[in-house]
Formats: sequence, structure tokens, C-alpha cells
Amino acid sequence: MKMSNLSWFAIILLLNQLSSASGGKILVFPLDGSHWVNMKVLIEELHAKGHQVTVVRTSDSWYISETSPVYTSVTIPYPGGFEDHFDVSLPQQLEIRLQSNPQSFWSRFWAQHQIDNMVIDQFFNFHKAASELIIQMFEDKNLMQSLHAAKYDVVLTDPGIGGGAMLARWLQIPLVNNVRWTIQGEAHFLLAPSPLAYIPFTATELTDKMTFLQRVKNFLSYNAGMYTLSMITEPNYKPIVKRYFGPDVDYSTFFLDADIWLMRNDFIFEFPRPTMPNIVYMGGFQCKPPKSLSDDLEKFVQSSGDHGVVIMTLGTLVGKLPQVVSEEIAAAFAQLPQKVIWRYMGQRPSNLGNNTLLVSWLPQNDLLGHPKTRVFVTHGGTNGVQEAIYHGVPVVGLPLFFDQPDNLSRVRAKGAAVIVDIAMLNRHIFAEALMAVLYNSTYREKMQMLSRLHRDQPMKPLDQAVFWIEYVMRHKGAPHLRSQSYKMSWFVYNSLDVIAVLLTAVLLATFICVSVLRFLWRIIFRREKVKHE
Amino acid sequence: MKMSNLSWFAIILLLNQLSSASGGKILVFPLDGSHWVNMKVLIEELHAKGHQVTVVRTSDSWYISETSPVYTSVTIPYPGGFEDHFDVSLPQQLEIRLQSNPQSFWSRFWAQHQIDNMVIDQFFNFHKAASELIIQMFEDKNLMQSLHAAKYDVVLTDPGIGGGAMLARWLQIPLVNNVRWTIQGEAHFLLAPSPLAYIPFTATELTDKMTFLQRVKNFLSYNAGMYTLSMITEPNYKPIVKRYFGPDVDYSTFFLDADIWLMRNDFIFEFPRPTMPNIVYMGGFQCKPPKSLSDDLEKFVQSSGDHGVVIMTLGTLVGKLPQVVSEEIAAAFAQLPQKVIWRYMGQRPSNLGNNTLLVSWLPQNDLLGHPKTRVFVTHGGTNGVQEAIYHGVPVVGLPLFFDQPDNLSRVRAKGAAVIVDIAMLNRHIFAEALMAVLYNSTYREKMQMLSRLHRDQPMKPLDQAVFWIEYVMRHKGAPHLRSQSYKMSWFVYNSLDVIAVLLTAVLLATFICVSVLRFLWRIIFRREKVKHE
Repeated sequence: MKMSNLSWFAIILLLNQLSSASGGKILVFPLDGSHWVNMKVLIEELHAKGHQVTVVRTSDSWYISETSPVYTSVTIPYPGGFEDHFDVSLPQQLEIRLQSNPQSFWSRFWAQHQIDNMVIDQFFNFHKAASELIIQMFEDKNLMQSLHAAKYDVVLTDPGIGGGAMLARWLQIPLVNNVRWTIQGEAHFLLAPSPLAYIPFTATELTDKMTFLQRVKNFLSYNAGMYTLSMITEPNYKPIVKRYFGPDVDYSTFFLDADIWLMRNDFIFEFPRPTMPNIVYMGGFQCKPPKSLSDDLEKFVQSSGDHGVVIMTLGTLVGKLPQVVSEEIAAAFAQLPQKVIWRYMGQRPSNLGNNTLLVSWLPQNDLLGHPKTRVFVTHGGTNGVQEAIYHGVPVVGLPLFFDQPDNLSRVRAKGAAVIVDIAMLNRHIFAEALMAVLYNSTYREKMQMLSRLHRDQPMKPLDQAVFWIEYVMRHKGAPHLRSQSYKMSWFVYNSLDVIAVLLTAVLLATFICVSVLRFLWRIIFRREKVKHE
Repeated sequence: MKMSNLSWFAIILLLNQLSSASGGKILVFPLDGSHWVNMKVLIEELHAKGHQVTVVRTSDSWYISETSPVYTSVTIPYPGGFEDHFDVSLPQQLEIRLQSNPQSFWSRFWAQHQIDNMVIDQFFNFHKAASELIIQMFEDKNLMQSLHAAKYDVVLTDPGIGGGAMLARWLQIPLVNNVRWTIQGEAHFLLAPSPLAYIPFTATELTDKMTFLQRVKNFLSYNAGMYTLSMITEPNYKPIVKRYFGPDVDYSTFFLDADIWLMRNDFIFEFPRPTMPNIVYMGGFQCKPPKSLSDDLEKFVQSSGDHGVVIMTLGTLVGKLPQVVSEEIAAAFAQLPQKVIWRYMGQRPSNLGNNTLLVSWLPQNDLLGHPKTRVFVTHGGTNGVQEAIYHGVPVVGLPLFFDQPDNLSRVRAKGAAVIVDIAMLNRHIFAEALMAVLYNSTYREKMQMLSRLHRDQPMKPLDQAVFWIEYVMRHKGAPHLRSQSYKMSWFVYNSLDVIAVLLTAVLLATFICVSVLRFLWRIIFRREKVKHE
């Protein structure tokens, strides 16, 4: 019996040995809400590769469940409703936009101003909650002790808030960012040189080809954005950073600790721009081949014949559109010979065509991958746009909030989308946009080219992501990919101190030369004078 | 008989079809001399993948033979001795360096100045010859017509000179650069943002961590370098560009046409720095596992026992060292318990130790890959340094010319090399350097770490290179990876026009405000005055 106990113990030891040899220990500090959807794709893949994943979550999280077959969780007791900050005022924002007069510049300007203020308030409250959550975590000595004792190999985080980065620095272990946004806007702006002459700042809807006035707009937007962001971060994070890491630490340096930045982005979608050695592009890593549709849906799709189908969904954030907008959209759809599948909640439009199927949920990826799908009408969320690119389906965009206008303006710049301003939407404008994308073949051709390019990579984006997470674990970080620029002030970074000193030296030398010449001149002149006298 | 003829024709057609389906047509415009060694590795791999390669060469080329099993060639009749420009004054340069007094700043400064002038002369003559060669090519209407008629898919070039880029633009086909240097120094300086605060300019031997004075040196070197380069390019290339491409075309834009830049470089070797979406790093793509040594050499190596062997070679450019230097090196080697294999030409040093084997050629890669090899004494050519990294052998560097000091300073900065200044070399200093690298284990550990990192990539560098060449052929270019920055003046790129206009606007507004206030003030003041009068 004793012998058998010993063997059992030996087997457990061996299993531990094996599991630590094949897999590592990964601590995930995700961003709650829709970002979790992306992170979960990575976690599932890491689990499949034999790694042990632990996820930090809040007690009130709707998205991140406490138990899962692919991860264990650590719960921070935070009853503040962490994830709700963004959803609240969206219908209100939409209402303001719809009530503005799209023909009047001032009316639009005023509407945008009101919406901007709402968004800033949202962000402020969101980061206030985030900072409270971080304090909650750091103050829980038992939790921190157990995280330390668990000896994780790497922290994987979404740096929308800084909790994961702070945790990594506190635990002194490597850090990998799964990122598209940091608090400083699109992540590249924190990380890589971003000349404003051709890199459009977040939320400007500009492209990489700008007129002079657009460049002025971009320049002003960037500076206004940076100022606004400092108004949000300073009060919320400065006290935390001071409390746990000392007085001379800048909040943004935590993000820059990251060994690898896994960008949910690529240059099929993004405009070409400077990048850094520790950026890995994994845009569309969540995309996958379609599964077959349910029998009912397949039957409906097939009934479209050669005309094909139009898919429409505005994502999860907007429950329902104002009735007047829905009526116009329904009227436009009713004119089409295509069949339409519309994810719709709310009152059934009175003028709904026979060709239009309303559904409360649709299998987006499977429909986009269906050969009969002709156009995708979308609000322009990252996920939907990436799936449209992956499957090569051209887009009619109805951008509403956040990154949606920027996402769609990128696809439009590549010639694969038409964008309709929801404030200007009526049945004619919407029908015109649909017809253009349906019957002008260039949209489809451009999108299919993007799809071909997207699929033509040395390695699949998800495999890339996993490779680099494992790389950081294997080599205990990747400091050789992290540039020295992160440690410099903007003054030194731009060599302004060198230029100042050199200019001073030149001026000084000139001054001395001139002085000496004047001195000599005077001596000669005096002599002459003396002679003449 | 007729039937059989027809079948034969059909088979040929079919074969043509098959070969054009599997392989493409690649036009290579290489740089002659040592750069050809690198290019040939790529060509062999492309040939193995079923592509047809045509190489443009000069009639007097020593390196690039007219016939080859892996390529066909097109010969430009150019009897100018195109490749000789660099070898001529090298012994003279070495002599100047050795005769300078290494203890005296001014003596070293003067020696460097003389050498710099020689190098500039060399470069000028090299580019003069290159420009003549390009004219020769463009003036040969039959040649150009046949190149056009051949319908190549892509031009692959080493942009050390611009002939390949000009050819690609003239033929209107995609362009791939196999590159480490352009005429503007290290290739990144032409292509990617290169903040001088942490990116050392070519030939400064600086690292990415600089003191203030080093940053001043870097700043001045960059500007002096750019000025010198314009002195070399303007007279040599401006007339050609004007003649064949029009008056408003800038020479540097030809390089920036490239769809993909295959950099003979990576971040194991190079300091981390901004990069661009169309740069593919293929550093060490020429490295391969060692083959076994000849019986004699293996026996000699094995006789070293646990002490191991030291390998020394100074590359192909320097035929022989001055005797006084060789004697000192031999004396230092004689002190070692290791065996030494020294690639040496010239008079046998009088004090050569029994442990030292002189050879006129050595299988560098096979020796570096041998488990008994302890140290590699090298001049620091790119090839040797990359092979040392690949095999994890630490380095004692004796840099002589060109990029050699820069290459070695990178390996030193990573802790895997000791550099000896050849002007200061004596038996004690050299022995000390050897002993340090032999017996201080950190050098070996650091180099082995670099080796592990180098070998840990998602895809082998050579496979990467071929993938991206084929990618450009598949998609007929890669414009989506080429940023808009290439089309901008430095003024616009840095938003200086925007800043100027905004500043002017602010000043104007201030001026108007102040004027209005002064006007109002005067009115009030006058009234008061009038009242008082």
C-alpha cells in the first residue's frame, strides 16, 4: 500500500514535470465587454497548446464567467458595474445625431460637440472605475501574494486599461499586449513614430492621403486628443502609480514594458505606417471558415437565386434603431431583387418587403462565408469588418460610435465600401449605396483582392500570435525587440537638446568672430583717425 | 508523322504552360563583388523553386560568370573594371592607420581624415563607373527591347547602385530590394523614421545608448554624411535620371519604388528601431549547418583536447597584414594552450607557435559550427559575423574598413565580442582580448543566447525571403505596404507647413486683438484728454 502511494506521488510529480515542460503558466488581465471576445480566442488556442491560463475578472462580470473549461479565474470583488460605462448613453448619442440637420455645418458641429462631451464623460467614468478596480486588486494582499507565488511565465493583457501592465511590473514577469487601443488612442501612437502628415489620428475618419486642410484637422485633433486624454488619466491613474510604484513613474511607461504587442490589425486593413520590431500584426486572427447554415436559413438564402443575399447587422451595442430610420431602411430593402437577412430588434417596420427576413440573431461568419452573400451592411465594428475582409464581401457602412467610422473609412479608402451617414439616411440614399455595391463590380473585386492578400501570409495570424506569446515565455521576455526610444523625453528623442547646443555654439562663434573683427576695425580706424588728426 | 509533330508541339506548349504556372520570370540586377555572394544564395533558392532567373552582368565581371546552371545572363559590354574601385587603396588605408599614434587624438584624427578622403574618392569613382554602366545599358536599345519583350514578373536588385530600380521603373514591373546599404548609408535611413537620439548613423560605431556628446557626434555625422553623399550622387546620377526619366525626378525615389525590402539584417544583430511594413528581415539567410571537416583538419582540431580551437580570418579583401602586426598576433597565439587555425597570406611569422596552423583558405562555416571552436577572430564582415551568431561562437574583432567597425560594435554591445584597434595592437593587448573571450564565460553565453534567438523564428530567413519575392510576383507588387511618406518633402512630412500656418494664425489673431484693444484704449484715453482739456 505504501509502495502504491509512493508510485502515485511519483506519477503526479512526473505529470507536473511534463506539463511544465510542454506548457507554461499565463496570467490574463483582459478588458471586459466586447474586447473579451477577442481575448477568449487567444485563450482557447493557448489552452489547446497545453498552457495553463488564469484570468483576472471582476465579481460582476457579465462576459467573463468564473468557471471555464479553458481557464481558471481569479475574481476581484468589485461591485461597481465595471463594463456598463459605454452602453448607457449610446441611444442618446444616436438621437442627438439624428436630430441634427445634416445640411447645416453648425448643427452638425454642435451635435458632434455634445456627443464628444458625452464620450469624454463615459471614458472618464470608465477609467475611474478601472482605477478603483486596480486599487482593489493591489490592496488585496492575499490575492497579490498568491499571484506572486503562482510564478506565472507571462502576463497577457488588453492595455485598454493599465491593470495588466502594472501587474506584470509588480510581479516582474514578461508582458504581452493584445491590443488595438491604449488610453492614448490607436496603439501605434504610443509606440511607433506617427508622422501626422500621413497618419490619421483616431476618430478623424481621415486617410493616409490628406489635403492641407485635412492635415491641419489631423494636427489639431491629435493635440486636442492628447490633452483630453491627459485630463482623463492624470486624476485617475497618477495616484495609483505613485502609491504602488513611486513618484517618478509615468503611467504610459507601463504599456511600453510590453515585450510583444499583438496588434489586432494588419496592413490589408490599416494604412501603411512606421512600425516597431516588437509589433506582431494578427489582424483577423479570429476569422475562420464558415460552417453550414441551418436548413431554414439555407433554404431562404438559396431562394435568392442569382441575385444573392444582403446581410445587415449593427452589432450588439445598439438594441434598436429609431423607427423612422428602420422604416427608411426597410423601404430601401423592399426595392431590391435580392433577399435580405436583417438582424433587427424593435417594432416591425410597416413597409417591410417580402424579400426581407428579420432575425434576432444571425450566424454572421457563416453567412459572410456563404457564396450567395453579395453585400454586408454593418456598423463597422472591428470584428465584422475583419470578417468581411476575410470572406471578401463588400460593405455598406452605417457607422455609429467609437472606432466604427475609422474602421469603415479604411475599407472605403481601399475601394471596398460605401459609407452612409445615419443622420442623412433616407430610402433613396440607402438604396443608392446598396445598388452601387451590388452592381458596380469594383467594390466586390477590391474586397476579394483584400481577402486574397489577407489569406496570403507566411503564417496564420492566430498561429503568429501564439508563436510570439510562447517566444516570450521561452526566452523570458524580448528586450532585444524593445527600442531605447521608450526611455526618452520628447525633447531628447527629437535631438532638440543637441540642436539647441549646436545652434548656441554657432551663434557664439559668430558673435566672437564679429566682436574680434569690430575690435580690430576700431583699432585700425582709430589709428587712421589719429593719423588724420 | 504530322500527327507526331503536332503532339510534340502540344507537349512543348503544355510544358511552357506548366512552367509558367509554377514558376515566374525574375530579372536580377546585382551588385558585383562580395555582394554577389549574398545574391547568389537567393538565386539558387529561387531556381530550386522553379523560377527562371536572368542576371544582368558586366563583360568584365570576375564574380558573376556568364553561364551558370541556375541562371541565364545578359551582359552589358562595360570594360571599365567595375568592381575594382574598392580594393585599390585598402592596403594604403591600413598603412595610414598603423602609422598613426593611437595615443594622440590629433594623430588619429588626421589619419581618419586621410582615410575618409580616400573612401570618398573610392565611392565617387565607384558611382561614376556605375552611372556609366547604367547609361551603357539604357543606350543599348536592342538590349532594353529584349528585356521588355521578355515580360519579367519582378526585378530583384541590390540597391547599392540604382540600376536595378531604374530598370524596374522603365519596364514598369514590381521591384524587390536585397539590401543592407543604399547610397544613403544603412538602408533604414532612406526608408524608415530614424531618430538620431538612439539610431547610430553609419560608420559612427555608436550604439543605441548614447551620451549627450555621442548624440552630438551622431547628429553631425549624419548631416556630414548626407552632404557627402549628395556630392557623390548629384554629379553622377542626376544627368541619367534627367535623360531617361525626366527633369523632376529625384534619384532616391527609385529605391523607394521597391515593393519589398529584404534586409540582410535582423534585431538579433541590429539595435531595435522603427521599421516599415514592407521591410522583411532575413539576417543570416545565408547561414547553414556545418559539414564535416577534411580528415587532416578534423585531426588537428581534435588534437586541441578540452582547450578547443581559435579560428582567425580577416576576409578576402586584405591579402596580407603588415609583417609587424602578424608577428604580434603570432606571438599572442603562441601563448595559448588552444590550437589556432589562421587563414594567412604572406611571409610566415618568425615566432609562430607550434599550436598555430597557417592555411590559405579555411571552411569558415564548418569550423564555426564545430563543437571544439572557442573563439572567432574576424575583421567583422557581415557574413562572418552572421555565421558567428548562427553558430554561437564569441568574437575577437579586428575591424579594418567599411561596415566592419559598425558590425562588431553591435556584437560588442550585446556582450558577445571584444574589439581590438589594429593601430594599438600588440601581443599583450591581443592576448588579453583572446583570454577574456576564452575564459570569461559571459561572452560565450551571450553569443549562444543570440544564436538561440536567431534560430527561433516563425520561418527560416531564406524561406521568408523567397516567400515575399513570390508574394510580389503573385500579387503584381505590394503597394498596400508602401507608405505615403515616400511622396512627401521633409517639410510636409514633419507638418512644418501646418505648424507655420497655425502659428501665423495665432500671431495674427493676437495682433488683431491687441490692435483693437489699443484702438479702444486710445479712444477712451482721448476722450479723457478732451474732457480734461
